[in-house]
Amino acid sequence: MINIRTDLAVEAREMYKKDNNTEVPGVEVDVKKPYEDVSVTVVEIKDERGAKIMGKEIGRYVTIEVPGIKHYDAEAHDKISEVLAKELENMIGIKDGDTVLVAGLGNWNVTPDALGPKVVSKLLITRHLKQLMPEHIDEGINPVCAIAPGVLGLTGIETAEIIQGVISKVKPNYVIAIDALASRKMERVASTIQIGNTGIGPGSGVGNKRMALNKDTLGVPVIAIGVPTVVDAATMANDTIDMIIDELIKQSKDNKDFYDIVKKVDKNEKYILIREILSPYISDLMVTPKEIDALIDDMSKIIANSINLALHPSLDKEDLNKYLQ
Amino acid sequence: MINIRTDLAVEAREMYKKDNNTEVPGVEVDVKKPYEDVSVTVVEIKDERGAKIMGKEIGRYVTIEVPGIKHYDAEAHDKISEVLAKELENMIGIKDGDTVLVAGLGNWNVTPDALGPKVVSKLLITRHLKQLMPEHIDEGINPVCAIAPGVLGLTGIETAEIIQGVISKVKPNYVIAIDALASRKMERVASTIQIGNTGIGPGSGVGNKRMALNKDTLGVPVIAIGVPTVVDAATMANDTIDMIIDELIKQSKDNKDFYDIVKKVDKNEKYILIREILSPYISDLMVTPKEIDALIDDMSKIIANSINLALHPSLDKEDLNKYLQ
Amino acid sequence: MINIRTDLAVEAREMYKKDNNTEVPGVEVDVKKPYEDVSVTVVEIKDERGAKIMGKEIGRYVTIEVPGIKHYDAEAHDKISEVLAKELENMIGIKDGDTVLVAGLGNWNVTPDALGPKVVSKLLITRHLKQLMPEHIDEGINPVCAIAPGVLGLTGIETAEIIQGVISKVKPNYVIAIDALASRKMERVASTIQIGNTGIGPGSGVGNKRMALNKDTLGVPVIAIGVPTVVDAATMANDTIDMIIDELIKQSKDNKDFYDIVKKVDKNEKYILIREILSPYISDLMVTPKEIDALIDDMSKIIANSINLALHPSLDKEDLNKYLQ
Amino acid sequence: MINIRTDLAVEAREMYKKDNNTEVPGVEVDVKKPYEDVSVTVVEIKDERGAKIMGKEIGRYVTIEVPGIKHYDAEAHDKISEVLAKELENMIGIKDGDTVLVAGLGNWNVTPDALGPKVVSKLLITRHLKQLMPEHIDEGINPVCAIAPGVLGLTGIETAEIIQGVISKVKPNYVIAIDALASRKMERVASTIQIGNTGIGPGSGVGNKRMALNKDTLGVPVIAIGVPTVVDAATMANDTIDMIIDELIKQSKDNKDFYDIVKKVDKNEKYILIREILSPYISDLMVTPKEIDALIDDMSKIIANSINLALHPSLDKEDLNKYLQ
Repeated sequence: MINIRTDLAVEAREMYKKDNNTEVPGVEVDVKKPYEDVSVTVVEIKDERGAKIMGKEIGRYVTIEVPGIKHYDAEAHDKISEVLAKELENMIGIKDGDTVLVAGLGNWNVTPDALGPKVVSKLLITRHLKQLMPEHIDEGINPVCAIAPGVLGLTGIETAEIIQGVISKVKPNYVIAIDALASRKMERVASTIQIGNTGIGPGSGVGNKRMALNKDTLGVPVIAIGVPTVVDAATMANDTIDMIIDELIKQSKDNKDFYDIVKKVDKNEKYILIREILSPYISDLMVTPKEIDALIDDMSKIIANSINLALHPSLDKEDLNKYLQ
Repeated sequence: MINIRTDLAVEAREMYKKDNNTEVPGVEVDVKKPYEDVSVTVVEIKDERGAKIMGKEIGRYVTIEVPGIKHYDAEAHDKISEVLAKELENMIGIKDGDTVLVAGLGNWNVTPDALGPKVVSKLLITRHLKQLMPEHIDEGINPVCAIAPGVLGLTGIETAEIIQGVISKVKPNYVIAIDALASRKMERVASTIQIGNTGIGPGSGVGNKRMALNKDTLGVPVIAIGVPTVVDAATMANDTIDMIIDELIKQSKDNKDFYDIVKKVDKNEKYILIREILSPYISDLMVTPKEIDALIDDMSKIIANSINLALHPSLDKEDLNKYLQ
Repeated sequence: MINIRTDLAVEAREMYKKDNNTEVPGVEVDVKKPYEDVSVTVVEIKDERGAKIMGKEIGRYVTIEVPGIKHYDAEAHDKISEVLAKELENMIGIKDGDTVLVAGLGNWNVTPDALGPKVVSKLLITRHLKQLMPEHIDEGINPVCAIAPGVLGLTGIETAEIIQGVISKVKPNYVIAIDALASRKMERVASTIQIGNTGIGPGSGVGNKRMALNKDTLGVPVIAIGVPTVVDAATMANDTIDMIIDELIKQSKDNKDFYDIVKKVDKNEKYILIREILSPYISDLMVTPKEIDALIDDMSKIIANSINLALHPSLDKEDLNKYLQ
Repeated sequence: MINIRTDLAVEAREMYKKDNNTEVPGVEVDVKKPYEDVSVTVVEIKDERGAKIMGKEIGRYVTIEVPGIKHYDAEAHDKISEVLAKELENMIGIKDGDTVLVAGLGNWNVTPDALGPKVVSKLLITRHLKQLMPEHIDEGINPVCAIAPGVLGLTGIETAEIIQGVISKVKPNYVIAIDALASRKMERVASTIQIGNTGIGPGSGVGNKRMALNKDTLGVPVIAIGVPTVVDAATMANDTIDMIIDELIKQSKDNKDFYDIVKKVDKNEKYILIREILSPYISDLMVTPKEIDALIDDMSKIIANSINLALHPSLDKEDLNKYLQ
């Protein structure tokens, strides 16, 4: 059984379905369409079998996809913030007074890895206000604090260690961890948001995390929000080759032998072969859209707004538009 | 005859030689090794035949390659600045008092296209000093001015129009145009510098130029300095597929049919097929090394230093290290 | 007659009125209140006498003041954009098809001088679209192009020369020049916008312009938009000292002699004395609010939006909010 | 006894000496001149009396002053790095294998407060390398890690809490805290570096720290490195007024009464009066040199280099120039 690595639950499921023509066992899937151009896929991994196939922990993974999202469409951005806020609320179930620590993971010096730090810079930070002047802060405004812990190469300290240290002082009820992901498909870059209630696994994301960030390692529930910002070069090459071979086969329909040979090339073997061939480059390479700077900006605003909406029940969109930008 | 598009003269020549096992007719090539790890290839396109095959104007193209260049090796950077300064001096033959306008092409908002603007920001600008306080400026310091004209999408004005307008006021003896290029090979990204005396052709570089920048369009000689900062996604896919096919052939040596089929797939046809398949993504995609921000910084310092050295004969490296950073 | 230097027409008038208890001769003033917290002062300098006293060209100067403006109040920002757009429309009287060149003056490396370049980066640029695909661009969308010419120290070229060069190619009907100004009063920093139809005088603004940008030097009408972003250190010291002396006098009312002495200190003399004492520092010093980065961002959005609204009659605020950010 | 607030021990001492014509009791001062244009003042506060007068903890404060330092003089920068490295070594007395945590305090969004975060971004980070591949790291390279904890308004968490949290995981032998300071004198801005072995007091620096960072609060010795990057607006006004009054007195020597009156104005009272008058602006105002961005860059390189030299005895300046920039 192939266990292909992808950060996105919807992609893991997609690959399984494509190969097996059936839903992943132990996994329940529900698709909603809150708006015509926005789809929400809820993937529930129910048991160990599903977890193994999917390469993910047992838990709930909600993926919001907006394939046609445009950089300049502020209205669409508002819609997505709203949808994401609602899904976040469902997942957290925040109670009045709960403290939330938001951790913006990633390297602020590498554009496609800077999503987390950018979200943090746009949040409504309230924990200190609740402590210093509680009488001025309305009910329904909950204490929120945030850090961007950087990456191992910048700090010399594991991301998880920094967050553990901060948690030991702040004692939050929840951690929300934001991270940039790698997608298998170009179309998903900066048009897809995944939220999950199982935290962040080691090795996921654009940068290299060596320790998981989850309830086990941090001691509090960890909600992960991720957006694909790069495409894995090996998978892109792999997919392109598949398309080429399909095309070649079409063009030489009568050539039975060729078809047979190509059939015989095991999928996983081929992927491994490509990784090997590309390996001198892979670790250094990233494939991104040209307008990645602007896309990361958009996505960080959308996510920051949705966190602001979800964590402060007494605020509505108009308040946020009035008080924040 | 295949006329494959590449911004680099050495790559055009390489491809021709690989396919034809002979030097390009009408082209003279000389390779020097000023340092063990630095090679300088001078490609002289002598006639129209060579120009047509190479897809480049008749003229002189000097390529400096430093395959092992490391981000942190300041000593190596100094060596390359020196080599580049010497080649620039040869190509320009500056006379005392000559005014030079440096044009840093590209989009400062797109990291791999920001090379030109970054070089401009690091130059020793002297034209106004020579005008305002000539008595304080030593001989051997020539009047240098510089602009970063932006790209059409940012200004609504053709790059060439802005430069023509500025030239009409400044009346420089030379223009040096800096641009980020696309390479066919990952190894060349941020490790290769090309200087040419034929200016910049339409459609070259990372961004989209629609008008050439050369003696015809600007009225003064144009020296172009370019560095590959991205890899074309289609050529990367193409090269990967070639490697894969080679590998597959090796693994199934006895299978004569397969080899024959693959042989029959015309190279150029295959490349066109790949471009077609990738075309929905190609225009938006770029493949860059992860540390592209730091690499662009390094390269812009190297180029700015070499221009400073080449244009101001009375300065040496120590002066520049003392007065600039 | 004292002719105190200030970039703002309202300040020149204020100082004259304070000293003379009468309106400036040759100057007409009208104050409007489009919103409770927004005041619009129109200063019309009618003749040479008024021009001499005010230290400004004959022409129309509109100042929008929003004393209580807050960084986070997006609603208020929209209101000001609207008011500014209306005043711009009045001043320009744009006709369908008119080409406008926006020049964002100032040094992008010095935060309080970066207003102009920041406005340019937020404009809706359309000139190339009207040229390349006129059939796709609605009526009521006029051709707008823009440049940020930098400052003399960065380019070695006079700002006016670059703009003249570009005008010679683009042949716009109007130039709009954006610049950061120095105010005499802290309260005006980033809360005041001045528009004038006489262009930009030499020596005005935060940076050093040595040539005027007006119809005489550029050949087309020049609308100037300015926002105070720094306070002149000498005037701040001057004003503080005046306040101190007032306070000292109050505290020693009976002391007739002191009052007399201070009275005898000529105002202008005192100012000159202060400038002399501070002169080793003045050229290097600037006094800004701590949140200057955020304030410049706000103001550049407000101005860019109002230019977008004023130049494209077929767009309304909703369109802009939808298509731009 | 006046206890005027200043972040710099040399300024506190200077003020005392000026008013009392004697060295501060309980304080020992030693001045060295390692280079003609570099002076090093060591202020040792020996007892509680000295501490009270100086407004600083008992301890050692070393101030390096380079009044003529120029932005572009790389040679001078190297000299200062060396001097600072030596003083740091003296103060820390690092033993092989000691882990050091560098904390870059301040707000990265406010240019003059961004010194600390900028230093952190230029350090040689080694702690993770010593852990992951100890066999590749030479002796004499000690484990260094670093964070920029941000400020309360950005994170909602006290700086001291974040650092305490990180210390609880990293268990360093020393903390080095870098901070931007306010100076009373313009000449000291970006030309003076203070190192002290008593950590950082509450309320010091450009931003607002509410908790001390010292051995008491962090549990390990804290070395503080500070550079003045702004001038306090009230003290600048105060000093200017003193100069004005001196000048006025000189010009009216015979006027005995005036002199008497001014004499009667108590110094401290006057300062308090100025603060009151300026108070609506003071909290928001900062006075900085225009080239503050470049100055902060220079200073952060100097400090980062000196920390790299001091903490890794096996590296010399050539190594650092070769391996770092």
